[in-house]
Amino acid sequence: MDRAFAYAHEHRDQYLEELREWLRIPSVSALPEHDADCERAAQWLGDRLQRMEMRVEVIPSARHHPLVYAERLGVPDAPTVLIYGHYDVQPPDPLELWDSPPFEPTVRGDRLYARGASDDKGQVFAVMVALEALLATGGLPVNVKVLVEGEEESSGAEISAYVPRHRRKLAADCALVMDSGFFDRGIPAITVGLRGILYEEVTWQGPETDLHSGLYGGAAPNPFHEAVRLLGDLWDRRGRVRIPGFYRRVRLPEEEERHRWQALRVEEAALANRIGARGLVGEAGFSVLERLWARPTFEIHGLGGGFTGPGAKTVLPARCTAKVSMRLVPDQDPEQIHRAFERYILRKTHPAYRVEIRKLYAGRPWAISPHEPAVQAAARAWREAYGAEVQFIRQGGSVPVVELLARTLKLPVVVTGFGLPDDNLHAPNEKVELPLLWRGVEAVIRFFHHVREALRASQAEPLKPL
Amino acid sequence: MDRAFAYAHEHRDQYLEELREWLRIPSVSALPEHDADCERAAQWLGDRLQRMEMRVEVIPSARHHPLVYAERLGVPDAPTVLIYGHYDVQPPDPLELWDSPPFEPTVRGDRLYARGASDDKGQVFAVMVALEALLATGGLPVNVKVLVEGEEESSGAEISAYVPRHRRKLAADCALVMDSGFFDRGIPAITVGLRGILYEEVTWQGPETDLHSGLYGGAAPNPFHEAVRLLGDLWDRRGRVRIPGFYRRVRLPEEEERHRWQALRVEEAALANRIGARGLVGEAGFSVLERLWARPTFEIHGLGGGFTGPGAKTVLPARCTAKVSMRLVPDQDPEQIHRAFERYILRKTHPAYRVEIRKLYAGRPWAISPHEPAVQAAARAWREAYGAEVQFIRQGGSVPVVELLARTLKLPVVVTGFGLPDDNLHAPNEKVELPLLWRGVEAVIRFFHHVREALRASQAEPLKPL
Repeated sequence: MDRAFAYAHEHRDQYLEELREWLRIPSVSALPEHDADCERAAQWLGDRLQRMEMRVEVIPSARHHPLVYAERLGVPDAPTVLIYGHYDVQPPDPLELWDSPPFEPTVRGDRLYARGASDDKGQVFAVMVALEALLATGGLPVNVKVLVEGEEESSGAEISAYVPRHRRKLAADCALVMDSGFFDRGIPAITVGLRGILYEEVTWQGPETDLHSGLYGGAAPNPFHEAVRLLGDLWDRRGRVRIPGFYRRVRLPEEEERHRWQALRVEEAALANRIGARGLVGEAGFSVLERLWARPTFEIHGLGGGFTGPGAKTVLPARCTAKVSMRLVPDQDPEQIHRAFERYILRKTHPAYRVEIRKLYAGRPWAISPHEPAVQAAARAWREAYGAEVQFIRQGGSVPVVELLARTLKLPVVVTGFGLPDDNLHAPNEKVELPLLWRGVEAVIRFFHHVREALRASQAEPLKPL
Repeated sequence: MDRAFAYAHEHRDQYLEELREWLRIPSVSALPEHDADCERAAQWLGDRLQRMEMRVEVIPSARHHPLVYAERLGVPDAPTVLIYGHYDVQPPDPLELWDSPPFEPTVRGDRLYARGASDDKGQVFAVMVALEALLATGGLPVNVKVLVEGEEESSGAEISAYVPRHRRKLAADCALVMDSGFFDRGIPAITVGLRGILYEEVTWQGPETDLHSGLYGGAAPNPFHEAVRLLGDLWDRRGRVRIPGFYRRVRLPEEEERHRWQALRVEEAALANRIGARGLVGEAGFSVLERLWARPTFEIHGLGGGFTGPGAKTVLPARCTAKVSMRLVPDQDPEQIHRAFERYILRKTHPAYRVEIRKLYAGRPWAISPHEPAVQAAARAWREAYGAEVQFIRQGGSVPVVELLARTLKLPVVVTGFGLPDDNLHAPNEKVELPLLWRGVEAVIRFFHHVREALRASQAEPLKPL
């Protein structure tokens, strides 16, 4: 390994220039005017992998967001690692808040500022450097398949269709998703749980058209009244969602996992302060991290319809549309929760109203045991590379590709990286910290070695029960 | 009176042409580009009243919506009637739904189509014809003051400031507000009650900025949750508003007045059907008309903030702003209800949220006894002119000028006219029915005669208690 570390170290200046070149391509997948840029960014990556003598495919896409696939196989008696990342980036606006242009990567001190520096080009690039350093210094300890998408920040449609159709091609022993990072500065982490999501739209209709609230107020059904009545009654006094069956399949994390969260010292008051709120809310009887990581939620995103402009308009609106979502945790099933939600709303709605419920999208929750050998191998690699204890964390959000790889390919998935919470993902002045990136190269090299041992070992003895 | 009727009848064609000329002026007070038109419409009216040898003032206004004042006094031993109307009109859009252009008055059958035909130029014009016919055939039976505003469809600011500053000039024995009409085709009516209004805006804030619902959902305060919780709990099971003190000063109409409403046969199912709803809602124990006319309400107009666009966005919004209003009935006081509402919201809001309450505007409720002599005189005049029993109705909406005249000038106010519910006020294809307009001229002539007798009589004997 030391030779590979040395190789990567010697070529840092060259690698930094290459990363800057890739970051200059504004591959914003959500904006159709950047379709050609997305194709250029994919092609750039394909060419770069080709130079490492990998077998590369840039898979054409009707939506101009090609998948990039590469493989380097043939290492005998070694497991296969499927590496995931994405080359597309978030839109850069508001531009005026950037200190240097988002697509003119700029180094200031230890930091490289650019859209995509941390999410996710910088992290994908670190894996490529690790691969090249190993190839230049004796070869890979594992077989490698690389799958990089260009729609992570938009639809994810291409990869969602591709993976189930290419199970054999993508077969591996574990996956490494380099699209995450540290729990906090100085605290490297492996993400071992992600919440799922169920997004619904509910429309209540009272009268056929908007009415004058003076002429009809007091007798005509106002759909906002029905919406606030039903949604306002959705939580009990302890903050638990009242939908029957909502908690039936909720599995608490192992005592040990939850116990270690206490060491992360996330205090109610500090979090409230960080988000600028007067306090926190949520389900009684659970800590902040339990509420954010391991408990399902129900969230209202907005209530459309009616009058919300400046001034006063006395409309009695015909319709009110609630945008709501539920974050789900293992082993909740989105389809089952959808049906329970639908039943609840239909049963409770007053007969004066029409109601329509539309499931907009759903994603399953995911979790992996920290004892999983691939996870342990990553933890060891990250601990050695960064010289700090690694935490097993969860995230409250949803990263559908993780669950997709785990379920479709039946893989243990290692979700990690070297991003920091203050990297300004999806915000102006996105950056990556270069010392963490170079250590990341080292961490990935170590991971390939450790996972080879761990998976050999685990194949010899039965897995610990979860 | 017969000579006056005959005079008006003989000059119908000329009067119709004059009304069409006035209707051609697009005096839309809500749109600044029509400021000059509003001034033209005011000047047209002033010139027309001048030709009747009234003392006329077109009172310049900083907002280009002059008040038109005219008077013809000097009738000895006769009461003074203050006549109110407005020359401004609603915006005509959507233009494509008009069968003939809104400002090209068009007669089809018995109907004259134009913006303002019914609301309110047609009704003001009928009063002018009545005055001219009386002047041409022996003189007025009463003293007359005319006050016509140009901001009824916008701010009402000019008249609200003018009336309190000109109490002596506007002193009268009763007021006639010609800006209302029939209960239904064939059922002439006098409006004896109007609800007041209190319009409020409540903003709840949770975090300082919008957050990602995956990262923070379950712990961060979501202001929409607080809004639906508080607003959803605002009514009890019987549909009564829970704000303490809300009903304290509510006065029920006299048994007799409510009893007569039953004869109007407004059925729940028919009204639901008319507005295209599956049913009606509201306070238990009260009929539809009681709920619409004599009970206070609380209405939600909209909830701003968050995400309401197409598709799905997982925002946990920083702020939610509720637009709400309460319709008030005698003797509720808007200021007192505002304080009660504010106390209720402040007391109930969870400490994790900031809350801000803004009173946007308020108007007092108004009612008059059907036994009031001026009201009885109008009822007699309308019954004779239209050959049908007159109903004493209320309206659920608010017409601030009525309460302004009643309170500031201490006048009994007669609110009536010859508009029909299907005149398409504020909608495309506004029209007035010409037979009703010509009968309206007769009704006003009769009213002047009857009110002279009635007010003489009432000055002789004490008023009946209300």
